[in-house]
Amino acid sequence: MEQLREVGRPITRVDAYDKVTGRAKFTDDLCPKPCLEARILHSTIGNGRVVSIDTTEAKKVPGVVAVFTCFDVPDRPYPVAGHPWYADSHAEKRDLADRKLLDDRIRIYGDNIAVVVAEDTVACDRALRKIKVEYEEWPVVYDPKESLKGTEHPVQDIKPDNLVAHTCALTSPENLAKYGYKTVDDAINDPAYHHIAIHTETGEQSQVHIETCTSFCYMEGGKIVCVASTQIPHIMRRVIGQALGIPWGDVRVIKPYIGGGFGTKQDIHYEPLNAWICQQLGGRCVRLELSREELFWDTSGRQPKSFDVEASYGDDMLLHARSIRGWSNTGGYIHHGHALVLNSVNSFRWLYHTNEVASRSEAWTVYTNGPHTGAMRAYGVPEGVWTAECLMGDIAHDNGWDGVEFRLKNCIREGFVDEFTPGGAVAAHTCTLPQCVEKGKEWIHWDEKKREYANQTGPIRHGVGVAFFVYKTAVAPFALETATSRVTLNQDGSVQLQMGATEIGQGADTVFSQMAAEAIGVDTEDVHIVSFQDTDVAPYDAGAYASRQTYVSGTAVKKAGLELREKILAFAHRLYPAAGENLDLRDHAIWDATGRQVCTLASLALEAYYNVDANDQLSAYATANVHTNAIATGCTFADVTVDMPLGKVTVNRIISVQDNGRLINPKLVEQQVHGGMGQSIGFALSEEVQVDPKTGRVLNDTLLDYKIPTMMDLPDLKADFVESDDPTGPYGNKAVGETPIISPAPAIRDAILDATGVKFYHMPMTPQRLVEGFKREGLI
Amino acid sequence: MEQLREVGRPITRVDAYDKVTGRAKFTDDLCPKPCLEARILHSTIGNGRVVSIDTTEAKKVPGVVAVFTCFDVPDRPYPVAGHPWYADSHAEKRDLADRKLLDDRIRIYGDNIAVVVAEDTVACDRALRKIKVEYEEWPVVYDPKESLKGTEHPVQDIKPDNLVAHTCALTSPENLAKYGYKTVDDAINDPAYHHIAIHTETGEQSQVHIETCTSFCYMEGGKIVCVASTQIPHIMRRVIGQALGIPWGDVRVIKPYIGGGFGTKQDIHYEPLNAWICQQLGGRCVRLELSREELFWDTSGRQPKSFDVEASYGDDMLLHARSIRGWSNTGGYIHHGHALVLNSVNSFRWLYHTNEVASRSEAWTVYTNGPHTGAMRAYGVPEGVWTAECLMGDIAHDNGWDGVEFRLKNCIREGFVDEFTPGGAVAAHTCTLPQCVEKGKEWIHWDEKKREYANQTGPIRHGVGVAFFVYKTAVAPFALETATSRVTLNQDGSVQLQMGATEIGQGADTVFSQMAAEAIGVDTEDVHIVSFQDTDVAPYDAGAYASRQTYVSGTAVKKAGLELREKILAFAHRLYPAAGENLDLRDHAIWDATGRQVCTLASLALEAYYNVDANDQLSAYATANVHTNAIATGCTFADVTVDMPLGKVTVNRIISVQDNGRLINPKLVEQQVHGGMGQSIGFALSEEVQVDPKTGRVLNDTLLDYKIPTMMDLPDLKADFVESDDPTGPYGNKAVGETPIISPAPAIRDAILDATGVKFYHMPMTPQRLVEGFKREGLI
Repeated sequence: MEQLREVGRPITRVDAYDKVTGRAKFTDDLCPKPCLEARILHSTIGNGRVVSIDTTEAKKVPGVVAVFTCFDVPDRPYPVAGHPWYADSHAEKRDLADRKLLDDRIRIYGDNIAVVVAEDTVACDRALRKIKVEYEEWPVVYDPKESLKGTEHPVQDIKPDNLVAHTCALTSPENLAKYGYKTVDDAINDPAYHHIAIHTETGEQSQVHIETCTSFCYMEGGKIVCVASTQIPHIMRRVIGQALGIPWGDVRVIKPYIGGGFGTKQDIHYEPLNAWICQQLGGRCVRLELSREELFWDTSGRQPKSFDVEASYGDDMLLHARSIRGWSNTGGYIHHGHALVLNSVNSFRWLYHTNEVASRSEAWTVYTNGPHTGAMRAYGVPEGVWTAECLMGDIAHDNGWDGVEFRLKNCIREGFVDEFTPGGAVAAHTCTLPQCVEKGKEWIHWDEKKREYANQTGPIRHGVGVAFFVYKTAVAPFALETATSRVTLNQDGSVQLQMGATEIGQGADTVFSQMAAEAIGVDTEDVHIVSFQDTDVAPYDAGAYASRQTYVSGTAVKKAGLELREKILAFAHRLYPAAGENLDLRDHAIWDATGRQVCTLASLALEAYYNVDANDQLSAYATANVHTNAIATGCTFADVTVDMPLGKVTVNRIISVQDNGRLINPKLVEQQVHGGMGQSIGFALSEEVQVDPKTGRVLNDTLLDYKIPTMMDLPDLKADFVESDDPTGPYGNKAVGETPIISPAPAIRDAILDATGVKFYHMPMTPQRLVEGFKREGLI
Repeated sequence: MEQLREVGRPITRVDAYDKVTGRAKFTDDLCPKPCLEARILHSTIGNGRVVSIDTTEAKKVPGVVAVFTCFDVPDRPYPVAGHPWYADSHAEKRDLADRKLLDDRIRIYGDNIAVVVAEDTVACDRALRKIKVEYEEWPVVYDPKESLKGTEHPVQDIKPDNLVAHTCALTSPENLAKYGYKTVDDAINDPAYHHIAIHTETGEQSQVHIETCTSFCYMEGGKIVCVASTQIPHIMRRVIGQALGIPWGDVRVIKPYIGGGFGTKQDIHYEPLNAWICQQLGGRCVRLELSREELFWDTSGRQPKSFDVEASYGDDMLLHARSIRGWSNTGGYIHHGHALVLNSVNSFRWLYHTNEVASRSEAWTVYTNGPHTGAMRAYGVPEGVWTAECLMGDIAHDNGWDGVEFRLKNCIREGFVDEFTPGGAVAAHTCTLPQCVEKGKEWIHWDEKKREYANQTGPIRHGVGVAFFVYKTAVAPFALETATSRVTLNQDGSVQLQMGATEIGQGADTVFSQMAAEAIGVDTEDVHIVSFQDTDVAPYDAGAYASRQTYVSGTAVKKAGLELREKILAFAHRLYPAAGENLDLRDHAIWDATGRQVCTLASLALEAYYNVDANDQLSAYATANVHTNAIATGCTFADVTVDMPLGKVTVNRIISVQDNGRLINPKLVEQQVHGGMGQSIGFALSEEVQVDPKTGRVLNDTLLDYKIPTMMDLPDLKADFVESDDPTGPYGNKAVGETPIISPAPAIRDAILDATGVKFYHMPMTPQRLVEGFKREGLI
């Protein structure tokens, strides 16, 4: 790969100092206090409707300014997912609008039926307790397959059969006919091949970001201003406009620094309600902060899913045909809807397709009375890859094959183009997966450990496991991919970089700065990125999700940067015509074609601002439309100790090796991988939002009961990379942000299988499930 | 004049609702409190140096965080005037750097020698009282002509003779020779003509804006952020960079709504000191607000000036030759320096030049130990025009001529081009002054009143007076004139307008919105202007001064607006090629050449954001370089009652009639004129910063002692206009903001002369000066 100057530097993140010194301002830091506080009244039933609400006593509580109920708000449904919108010409592709500000139709336990606004939160809480609600209660349905059988009262009237969507991608009859099959099932059931069928389940993982969802709203300049902790400020602007029925230009959203999102903040939650309250109260500043408890049941965790898988394979270790059917429980509201389980079954299909003659990937997304769920890091793919790896692990185990060799024979390769997506956009233009596997295998001492751990006995056993992953980059061609960036030359030759894309803790500001510096020809230290997004002045961008920003917004940065570079050189030529054409900008100066310095960049910048005859404020603004996609790959190897009587798994060593294309900032990517590995270990072993299926109520809505791994629970997390230079990324880069959360969990499952011979199909593999499994197999 | 659609509408100002409801946020509203407070220690001598400062006791005061003295700050002088900067290629034109953050060399009474930073202002004040200062004291010089004789210690070492600058514009020998003269004095002293010589003086007027000078600073993102009440945020960014010796890109200035400036805030005052303190204290937020008292002696009022005038004129009522020599007292620091008195003598020359064969305009600006002075509304012109009108009034009175007729015979006419400015840029491309005079004369009943007020006796007398004025627009060709503007299409078809130019209460945001709407083809109500300037994201603009914004920044708005319009139409053509070329944007829709609607603008805007194949975030960014200038003119007629024993002048009726080119918003211009007339009446009759010439100390630094007219003191202020369509203004407009403060004062002087026959040459004409004059003339 060609060596680049700024891209690839492992520099300290640009917001590091502000964040460690506490200077960085988050939403709540900016809120002018005292201000009005708003708190929600949540339903105490999981299905039914509000018959009446008595707020008389609540309104008498000192400090209470207003109480609004579900009977006060406009009857105007709106969509909440952080998805690209569509113009009128493609209106049919827009997300379903199934949310209202407050609703008398209760679909989930804890649904929003009223809101108290008061001078302080104590008054809010006192008033909340004094509101009397009369309900009509209906039976709760939590199981998606049950829900699909129909309920007396559909969860949402727009989908009377409770089916949000059903899709199925099948190998075409022409392709099946080449092998003499009429259906995919014929290929799967061909007696010339081995047959296997499994059923997997994955629970609801919660994002558990440090900063809760918080916003404050006020009116100014004829606009409603909403300052919010969000991944998607421009989408929030639109949704507030839709929810309030006002022109979107009358809404201004400001996004300060964000304390993590992981997908929660790719949804719109209470911000429209807060904006509406503010509007009702004449523009007074209103703050609405969710409690940690509310985050667990009233924002959107990872959709719980189940999968039925069948496959056939030959003695040659090659997969022959596969089928995956997935069911996803979106709960009472659609949020991200069907896109998630589609991602699950697509990733299942892509990872090990190479020798396949037939495949089916089918999926259902279903309304239930469970908590509404939505986007979480890697957006359905961890569930699909977990399922794929359960299948691969089981086959290797059952046949005594080496799991690495078996996977390598079947896995995705460079040049793969998904036949099921239009235009061949989803493709592995580059793929260093085999080299990644080689690195990981060596680091974990795969062959030695396999030998060492063979034939163990006793209650405590050791195992090594492996899992591969695929992940696409951004959302094209499934949806619009666009981003805009602006770069402006400062008086001192430094550069102002303004993005619509959002820093949410992942390091986006740093990599954008590096890419801008690379494109313009300055140092990253000369780039001042504007971290906040204020929709009044920020360029448009859909926001932080789908590992899209470095790829899509990065394309906009590069385009704008190159345009500014051209403008700088053209201005230099105009000012110093004697220097000739083909000027160069490097080392803080302009150089002519013979290598002589024409002027310093700082001096040129002064001329751009202040030259009396020819000044020109140099700035470039570029919109990127991205129609490509690029598959990132990688693998995880894990070495575990399983204490079977305790149901305790200790991860001794673990490595993830990834092909994320070119690394814009290796240090930041490494940190991303560390975080993702930790979250995946939690997903594997402990993290699950537990729901009472009778009531739909979340049972473990605190961090005491919902267990995320802390530093104390984690081993050293080893991250390594085999870079590739992807031709579609702005600087050869592919998805990074979400990839590390995919393969650690299935690698641990594979290591447990290696250690104990027991196959687990339900994630997380909690002590309870492990002990049940070991008992079932007679090991304890 | 062609009728325009949005330009010319007398709409309510766009910030009206926010300002009357208190929603509008000013600097102090945004300051996160509690924060650190800083207060200055001022010298108690007017000339000398600090020998030592003992801060021991001050530092012991509870709550004090730091005390910095003049011995702690960097020895790095910087300029403070809100003037355009110059690139290295014209470095010689840059303002003198004669300020330091704090200075042991004391030049004025109240000079800044130390600063206390504490948890609250009470602790600051307690600590200030405990600082012990040892001085070496030198004699104070306050009179500029005395100062020019030289002082033992030059006020500023860079100008050892205390002369800041001296300039002289003389009629060329060739032109003089045409009339047989060798020198201007020959023409003035030609015995064939009448000769007159007068001496005038004008005092220091203070701007008295409602919001004092206030700022708060903190560090974020590696930058020093300064939120400040300023007319010139981009210049402030530069000056803070210069004062701290850091790259200008490392400074971020934010300007919220401003409660008036009138020139005070066209200077940089304590913001660099505040930024430096913040830097010393690790980026903690520090607030520095000047008291009302400090505003009087430590920001920059109108420079006191004196003028010597000589003239010759014929019996034909035509001026023959004139000379003006002006001396300006800049005090201990240069601030706006020589530009002010230059404006005085130039405006003297321009107003009544038509029949002249010879002229001299000569000026000196002098350092003294008086309070530093600088820019105030109309920037030297009221003093020059006052002097011109003293001359005209005296001649008319002495000869029994009609003052209006005499002035009209000699005054500026359409087509005037100033021979003394390069390139003929200063010109009256349009001039409706005669029509303005006609209107004013009629409204005041000039001829009737002249007859009615003839031959009065007794202590109380009535009079009518007149004065004309000229005012140039913006600062080209004397200095750089540039501005930048950005317009962006919102999703709903509304438009986001971003300016570097600043709303400081004058209504700039409203007229920019109207001009943008006119250019783009939308309604003003569809334009959302971003009122705040944040140098991190705002386009560059020099700021609010010199009546430049509607002219220069307006040119940028028009350019950007037309460019956005073109982009919208081009995008529509791309999307709907069948609609053909020559599309039109009006009435919220796109129309084809046959008048058929192609699509609504709102629908097109959605496509611009979300069209999957062809989306493009439509935005335009334009820099205007303005090399023209345009002279605005007008006149004031006043009817007064003079109570001679009381020294009291009552303005009974007063009208200003102006030619400001085309009025962008007649209602706002009228309000500008009302404000200016009020300030001019104050300047005429009461407003003067009184300085003790022995110590340099300001004697009347409160609003009890410095008397501005309130609503109770003012008559109905009548404003009228005769519009012209200036070819150089973006929409035919010329200067507005400063023009109304010029002619009311001399019109009142003329009315007093009419009433009493007494000639006053010292402005303000306070009761004391009036009584002295009437006594001198034996009238009381």
